[in-house]
Amino acid sequence: MTDRTGTGRVGFPAPSTDRGSSARGLDLEGQRRRGHGSFAHRDVQARDAARTAAPDIAVADLLGLLAFGELTAFERLATDARMAPTLTDKIALAGIAAAEFAHFEAVRAHLVRAGVDPVKAMEPFVSPLTNFHNLTAPADWLESLVKVYVGDNIAADFYREIAAVLAPDVRALVLDVLADTGHAAFAVERVRAAIEADPTVAGRLALWARRLMGEALTEAQRVAVDRSALTGLLDGMGDLTALAELFNRITLAHTARMEALGLST
Amino acid sequence: MTDRTGTGRVGFPAPSTDRGSSARGLDLEGQRRRGHGSFAHRDVQARDAARTAAPDIAVADLLGLLAFGELTAFERLATDARMAPTLTDKIALAGIAAAEFAHFEAVRAHLVRAGVDPVKAMEPFVSPLTNFHNLTAPADWLESLVKVYVGDNIAADFYREIAAVLAPDVRALVLDVLADTGHAAFAVERVRAAIEADPTVAGRLALWARRLMGEALTEAQRVAVDRSALTGLLDGMGDLTALAELFNRITLAHTARMEALGLST
Repeated sequence: MTDRTGTGRVGFPAPSTDRGSSARGLDLEGQRRRGHGSFAHRDVQARDAARTAAPDIAVADLLGLLAFGELTAFERLATDARMAPTLTDKIALAGIAAAEFAHFEAVRAHLVRAGVDPVKAMEPFVSPLTNFHNLTAPADWLESLVKVYVGDNIAADFYREIAAVLAPDVRALVLDVLADTGHAAFAVERVRAAIEADPTVAGRLALWARRLMGEALTEAQRVAVDRSALTGLLDGMGDLTALAELFNRITLAHTARMEALGLST
Repeated sequence: MTDRTGTGRVGFPAPSTDRGSSARGLDLEGQRRRGHGSFAHRDVQARDAARTAAPDIAVADLLGLLAFGELTAFERLATDARMAPTLTDKIALAGIAAAEFAHFEAVRAHLVRAGVDPVKAMEPFVSPLTNFHNLTAPADWLESLVKVYVGDNIAADFYREIAAVLAPDVRALVLDVLADTGHAAFAVERVRAAIEADPTVAGRLALWARRLMGEALTEAQRVAVDRSALTGLLDGMGDLTALAELFNRITLAHTARMEALGLST
């Protein structure tokens, strides 16, 4: 990847004293429009965009994705809390949801400080993330716990791959937002206990976890193609082979986690 | 009401250094069992319970109701945020939901400090509040905004009536939790704008507001009968006439607010 800052890291340019000027410099709509065309054509475009796009567009994309990811996670977890079998479980899941909203607020504040309109930064990701959640609405409490565990981990894997190339302040924000606050542990303990109590649920949950991963990859592919500046953040990501390798690493890590949980398919 | 503390205020006894001792002194289940019987019989029971119940049972009830009210408000608002017409509206409603969860946490922390198990304190109110929300699930964004406005205000009216008889620390907590953080204003502005844009929605929303109030009163009556210690908190509340007067004051205030909003039926 072209080292655009001379430090090997990408981030927002220092905001000017006029809060609005940096936001006006972004051309998110134009960036999105340029993403159209055939897949092969997009590949070329992605490479070009990775070389020429201003780093702040890529970082606005990354943080817009992260912000909307946290916002929808909040909504869905709070909705799933209604399926909790006990008040204690309901409180625990609601607490996880509230933590996701705090993360959303942190990312939004960062975007505003950088002079980026958070709503504009999130908009490109509304459709893929909403699709993902609509296609993976849990049917019961256990499915919702597996989704917390799977979702938390693949998001963490994805952002950890990207964090290495970010400017220190953005990297700190991303790692802070993704810091495990015990959510995965909460989910995994309860799933493990449910499988021990009734081993027949394992098969259903294994298929569910596999479907979650499949739908996540489908939407991720779409985002990768539509948001070339974002994919350009990763070294050589204009190359679709490298992108496929990233998705493959995330899938392998997911499969290993599912096996450890007794959910292999 | 018997002045049980010599100060005219009721609250938790100072917690002992053994955190659990005060909780063990509560007999929430027995209190609930005693609530059974005919309505007239319950009236007598309510009067007796108001005279004899330890103040900490009444305050545990009040805070249990408040805590579960905030928790369910959080869940429902976060769910309703999915109906928001714009990302900006979605963020605003999600922010209101997150604030409700922070309130829940504050009440829960207070109960724990007083040696009361928050889950036990909330349990008696799970059924009436869940019923209320199930019977008043908004069909669209405007209905959900009207529910925010109506719900916030009748809860505030109810707790303000009770706050006067509470010990200072409990009163401060209750008033802090109910402090308007702009939620009602957010809802009312958008409802007003929607009515201006299309006056025909007013009739439907007026009926909706009336139904919300009706369902709230039905559940409140049930709580009043089942939780005699709670009703005993209010001066002379063992007397069902006084209770009816309280509900009447809340209904009148609600009607005045609806008229101001152009939602009279």
